Amino acid sequence: MNSNIKIGILGGGQLGRMMALSGLPLGIACRFLEPARESSAAQVAERIQGDFEDYRVLYDFAQGMDAITFEFENVPVESARWLAERVPVWPPPEALAVAQDRVTEKTFFASQGIAVPPFAAIEDRADFDAAIDRIGLPAVLKTTRFGYDGKGQMVLRDRAGAEFSWQTLGGRPLILEAFVPFERELSIVAVRGKDGATAFYPLVENVHRDGILRKTTAPAPQLIPGLQMKAERIVRQTMEALNYVGVLAIELFEKNGELLVNEMAPRVHNSGHWTIEGAETSQFENHMRAIAGLPLGSTRVTGSSLMLNLIGQIPKREEIMAIPGAHLHLYGKTPRAGRKLGHITLRCDAVNEMADLAGRLESLIG
Amino acid sequence: MNSNIKIGILGGGQLGRMMALSGLPLGIACRFLEPARESSAAQVAERIQGDFEDYRVLYDFAQGMDAITFEFENVPVESARWLAERVPVWPPPEALAVAQDRVTEKTFFASQGIAVPPFAAIEDRADFDAAIDRIGLPAVLKTTRFGYDGKGQMVLRDRAGAEFSWQTLGGRPLILEAFVPFERELSIVAVRGKDGATAFYPLVENVHRDGILRKTTAPAPQLIPGLQMKAERIVRQTMEALNYVGVLAIELFEKNGELLVNEMAPRVHNSGHWTIEGAETSQFENHMRAIAGLPLGSTRVTGSSLMLNLIGQIPKREEIMAIPGAHLHLYGKTPRAGRKLGHITLRCDAVNEMADLAGRLESLIG
Repeated sequence: MNSNIKIGILGGGQLGRMMALSGLPLGIACRFLEPARESSAAQVAERIQGDFEDYRVLYDFAQGMDAITFEFENVPVESARWLAERVPVWPPPEALAVAQDRVTEKTFFASQGIAVPPFAAIEDRADFDAAIDRIGLPAVLKTTRFGYDGKGQMVLRDRAGAEFSWQTLGGRPLILEAFVPFERELSIVAVRGKDGATAFYPLVENVHRDGILRKTTAPAPQLIPGLQMKAERIVRQTMEALNYVGVLAIELFEKNGELLVNEMAPRVHNSGHWTIEGAETSQFENHMRAIAGLPLGSTRVTGSSLMLNLIGQIPKREEIMAIPGAHLHLYGKTPRAGRKLGHITLRCDAVNEMADLAGRLESLIG
Repeated sequence: MNSNIKIGILGGGQLGRMMALSGLPLGIACRFLEPARESSAAQVAERIQGDFEDYRVLYDFAQGMDAITFEFENVPVESARWLAERVPVWPPPEALAVAQDRVTEKTFFASQGIAVPPFAAIEDRADFDAAIDRIGLPAVLKTTRFGYDGKGQMVLRDRAGAEFSWQTLGGRPLILEAFVPFERELSIVAVRGKDGATAFYPLVENVHRDGILRKTTAPAPQLIPGLQMKAERIVRQTMEALNYVGVLAIELFEKNGELLVNEMAPRVHNSGHWTIEGAETSQFENHMRAIAGLPLGSTRVTGSSLMLNLIGQIPKREEIMAIPGAHLHLYGKTPRAGRKLGHITLRCDAVNEMADLAGRLESLIG
């Protein structure tokens, strides 16, 4: 009964690496499938190098696994479904399908009565013009698929901008979304077990730059009473509707005390990295617990946390590590502009200890 | 400047494994030298299988390493010295030499003016009889070398017991120590950097059974004011005298508000495992930081912790993991009677939350 549990993970980047590290002390061994030569996860666990659509590779990958999961949402749904006929795949491939297409995703939330910004699916120029008439400007035009970290999207401020965006993105399946003048971006990370048990981390505040997450403050400061409950209701309903198992993240806009869903990520999420030090159980461990059929761990926070991403370059390790409460996480990746190379979590017992240390840390990262 | 740091570790058991796991996020890669086929550490890092006294193996092991350390104190001192001529070895081999021989160790502490129980070195029967006359009974007879987890020692309660112990252990280099009617066993884990900076974890209370550590409570409850400072003075003086770099643990007896040194361990220590969840920086990470020449991390506690060893068998994983705040650490070892297979740390924000959960946990472990 205490033999090793074996989990296969599609994708071998930093998310997979942190999952594998969290599973090791629990007696969970991971195997990765990752096409790229360089792989963060392959440095800490078994890895098969191969394509997600090569069914012979998928067959070998699945051998002996107790369950299969994934670290990113662009895994081909057909591959996930094919694997699910052989080995349990969690989260369910259906959640992948919903998350991969922005129109399907927004339609799903709307059908659940969960608030999303006004949106329109766009196939051709006529759809585009009609959508602008209906939704108005400013608006955001996005490809429906394979967008991440701000790629494949443009803000339309006026008619000229709209024309330019059509010239750039037109011809692919697109979605036009109203530009929400939100007060801030929040997200919630939650986990659901095979038995339907759920646990929720607190709402966190996120700051993006150039479409990439830069900073997460956990818990989100100055939260309006009741907002955490609203967020939990949204994510619980989503997980139940999808018969979800594992960690789910939902990105939200806060506006006038209400929450609008921006998008969901059916996986562990960058805005949950602070949980390694800042919560009783990390999102990575809770994901592993959930898909392995083990009890969920406590999501209680152990203090106040600030997470900063290291993008493109890594400051001097010594200077970061000299800051009390700063925890460095490097992913073992070759530096390249715009690439997530690591993150730092600053954990403090109380929020009032945070400001000075956070200032020092942010000035080091630049 | 941010390239991987490479650390060689002599010994590939659970202590090495937890060192390697703590180094990974800092960009520290470990290589182990371990003679046994089964190795906890080899499951998470590179391992050379070979003998500690095979100098060709040691040569290969040292290639490309920035520093070398060890996870247990019975590494041959000559091997450590040979390696130190090629690559920095921390803690210094001299600390190994002191820790490996109980007479050398006790003499070292006594020469530093640090209180130890009365002791006598024993080579032959005449020494033995004279030692009993001087120290009295009850007393503890120990082999001077290669004792661990209570092996190689006997308690002498009366003359008959003394005779039996001589029949069993006589002929080897021995030490007779006064039996100290201590109130409890404490230990302190500390770390010293290459720059001489020091950091101290709080005194913890340890419970042994059959000579093996079973339970550590951190911080030690109901501590007499001033005792922490006394312990820090002892360990700081020891580290300075030995020009120490890395983590050092000292086991202590508490008696009438004073501390007597029982023994030291020039390495990360079982009574410091709780620091993974219960302190801002774990003993494993701080050891890696120290020997890599990086700044030490904060040793501040994040709450109250209880550490229980899993000896010989592992209870049902699910039941342990269902207890809020319980953190399971399995070492990937084959179960065998008396073997340390893992540990559990129960971390609570406040000590008054602990009792009920600790009771549940202890009843599961039995």
